[in-house]
Amino acid sequence: MAGVRGRPRASASPTGLTTEQDIRLAAARLFCTEGYGSTSTYAIARAAGISQAGMYHHFAGKHEILLALLLETVRPSVELCEELGRRSEPAAGRLWALCAYDTRLLVSGDDNLGALYLLPELSDPRFAPFHVERQRLLDGYRDLVAATLGSAGRGQSGNADLHGLTSLVFGLVESVILRRRSEPGLVAGDVDVRIADAALRLLGLDDDAVRRARADAPTPG
Amino acid sequence: MAGVRGRPRASASPTGLTTEQDIRLAAARLFCTEGYGSTSTYAIARAAGISQAGMYHHFAGKHEILLALLLETVRPSVELCEELGRRSEPAAGRLWALCAYDTRLLVSGDDNLGALYLLPELSDPRFAPFHVERQRLLDGYRDLVAATLGSAGRGQSGNADLHGLTSLVFGLVESVILRRRSEPGLVAGDVDVRIADAALRLLGLDDDAVRRARADAPTPG
Repeated sequence: MAGVRGRPRASASPTGLTTEQDIRLAAARLFCTEGYGSTSTYAIARAAGISQAGMYHHFAGKHEILLALLLETVRPSVELCEELGRRSEPAAGRLWALCAYDTRLLVSGDDNLGALYLLPELSDPRFAPFHVERQRLLDGYRDLVAATLGSAGRGQSGNADLHGLTSLVFGLVESVILRRRSEPGLVAGDVDVRIADAALRLLGLDDDAVRRARADAPTPG
Repeated sequence: MAGVRGRPRASASPTGLTTEQDIRLAAARLFCTEGYGSTSTYAIARAAGISQAGMYHHFAGKHEILLALLLETVRPSVELCEELGRRSEPAAGRLWALCAYDTRLLVSGDDNLGALYLLPELSDPRFAPFHVERQRLLDGYRDLVAATLGSAGRGQSGNADLHGLTSLVFGLVESVILRRRSEPGLVAGDVDVRIADAALRLLGLDDDAVRRARADAPTPG
């Protein structure tokens, strides 16, 4: 079936996107407004403007679409982590850049994909690839938190503390998922700068150190 | 119907709880493991060990059970806010106490009720009482954040900044909802102290001020 999946369809999409992108967008909207459990593959295909059979050419089922959507919320940030690992800017600046980028990613798009993190269905082993990627992202945060604490002379408190502080920073970034529901202005605002600043203050950096980190932050590319 | 709802049933519950508590517990478990959309009132009644008709004596439908569960996650903290408003301890200590208490509330219980905040169904007007209570809690946080910033000499940056900082603190506390999914040790740990400390550092308080706030924090009750 690998040769069949992803083949172009006969008629062009009115959105100008690929069929796979149409399916992802339609599913994202339905999962976030109707709920994952209440959404059928038939409803997804209809909203994407294709037949159910056409949908199965691209995805083995709705779990595979959900997995693809979940991966979209972490993979770009994991890639940025890898890039930041090769850069020479001070650690606090690189951590600032990661927090700001990851926040922008989580508030981007019309649908709050991060809300899908809390679905009970995510315990299913079929979503393991998402959990693996999210763990890689958390590891990336941990490395940058450790380097930031080291440079700031605050890194002597041991591994338990490093874990705890990393979880606080990671949780602060992901908190925009919960905030998107009740703060409609969040997307357009300066929430990326606010979260990144707050992440460094949370690690004990003072106002001057936070300003320096913001100035040192490499621009992702 | 008001006289009928809540009447004692013929046979005693094997859990020793009231029928209403049995229903809440059963529904919480099903909503958090099977999903709200996938849970029927029949399944809730069965898990609670009563008939469907018996369930309707207590709740008009599953939305009413969900509302009751959601209110459980905010009302105790709203009540603490009111108590803290009458106390004379320094503002930073009172804010510390609120963050720690609210965190403990959100990580308490066997089921992660906060995960229900992200259900698409919560846009339904029937859940307005929850949104009202959560807004009251946010207002309580804002008053304590403003007082804390004022005492720390950091309160000159205007209202937009106060809103932004309050949302950061509130988001940091609620981030434990997202963390409960991937950190099984969160409940037993010292996450309440860590979150409360981090909330004050995020507002720009230094290590000494955070230590003082922790010592000043009134014990709820």
